[in-house]
Amino acid sequence: MQLLEDRIRRDGLVKEGNVLKVDNFLNHQMDIELFNEMGKEFRRLFPQKEINKILTIEASGIGIACVAAQYFHVPVVFAKKSQSINIDGSVYCTKIESFTHKRVYDVIVSKKYIGKDDHVLIIDDFLANGCAVNGLIELVQSAGATVEGVGIAIEKGFQEGGKLLRGKGLHVESLAIVDSMDASTGEIVFRSQN
Amino acid sequence: MQLLEDRIRRDGLVKEGNVLKVDNFLNHQMDIELFNEMGKEFRRLFPQKEINKILTIEASGIGIACVAAQYFHVPVVFAKKSQSINIDGSVYCTKIESFTHKRVYDVIVSKKYIGKDDHVLIIDDFLANGCAVNGLIELVQSAGATVEGVGIAIEKGFQEGGKLLRGKGLHVESLAIVDSMDASTGEIVFRSQN
Repeated sequence: MQLLEDRIRRDGLVKEGNVLKVDNFLNHQMDIELFNEMGKEFRRLFPQKEINKILTIEASGIGIACVAAQYFHVPVVFAKKSQSINIDGSVYCTKIESFTHKRVYDVIVSKKYIGKDDHVLIIDDFLANGCAVNGLIELVQSAGATVEGVGIAIEKGFQEGGKLLRGKGLHVESLAIVDSMDASTGEIVFRSQN
Repeated sequence: MQLLEDRIRRDGLVKEGNVLKVDNFLNHQMDIELFNEMGKEFRRLFPQKEINKILTIEASGIGIACVAAQYFHVPVVFAKKSQSINIDGSVYCTKIESFTHKRVYDVIVSKKYIGKDDHVLIIDDFLANGCAVNGLIELVQSAGATVEGVGIAIEKGFQEGGKLLRGKGLHVESLAIVDSMDASTGEIVFRSQN
């Protein structure tokens, strides 16, 4: 998606350790007009009428998912990190390792909000090694629901997550795929998706 | 706001310990069409042209803030709980005690995203004792920015947060104020705001 690639080039910062900082517009400060364009693009890429729910994970996925949901006319469910006393005992649970925070989270979704008749679109801000998305897929499968697709804002194409997910036959669409980036020059190379 | 009060009566659950569970539509599964109506109402209640940024806190505030931001045409910044390696060292920091999780969080906002010229609307899902909102106000004040108002989805009117904030002269608007609720009968009494 040209608009997102342009924005990453303009406002993204490449840091040592394969870190791409996009907190200017994506995951700390959030550009809602950009999110609307991303939401329209997700709808174009996932036209299935069956999609009746969007699943994301706190915190950075929520804004993108909520704005996108307006184009699908479906509710959003966000998976929560760690147990909350406000969640009933009746939850699906998995473990997700965070690349950013270097720790493992328990991630839960209430059984009330995903069931076997659901057709779920998973949305998240980043796809790198795929841990978060794999955890979300596990939650959907635990519920006996169907994963209709995985919509990602930025995929780090040089890490294995996207390849592994596509290899399983999943419909994965990333609005921008970074094939390489260089912290010393700031250069970012995007994969052509035309 | 009648639509929200009706929804709380229909789908909210009153639990022992002054817990109001609204995870069916507000803070786990999220009804985006409802969020749109709430966003329009926030715009009506806060018509100030000066508002150039919405500040919320992860995780439950993000969806409401992002959908509302479409009616203000401003970016959203969400304050983050605990330090992330993806945040530069240059942050405003405060401590917030969570009623839900019974713990104290470090909450941060990058100095890049709030500055002295900003006119900030704070949005969150709940207002009870006011800890979260007070923390967000502290962050805004640390930046030398102006708090234009505080927009809340559900205020627990029987706790002191709203009264204390209004007592300081802040413009606080809650779309629904629960004056009392009874876990044994499920009854919820809303404050009249006409």
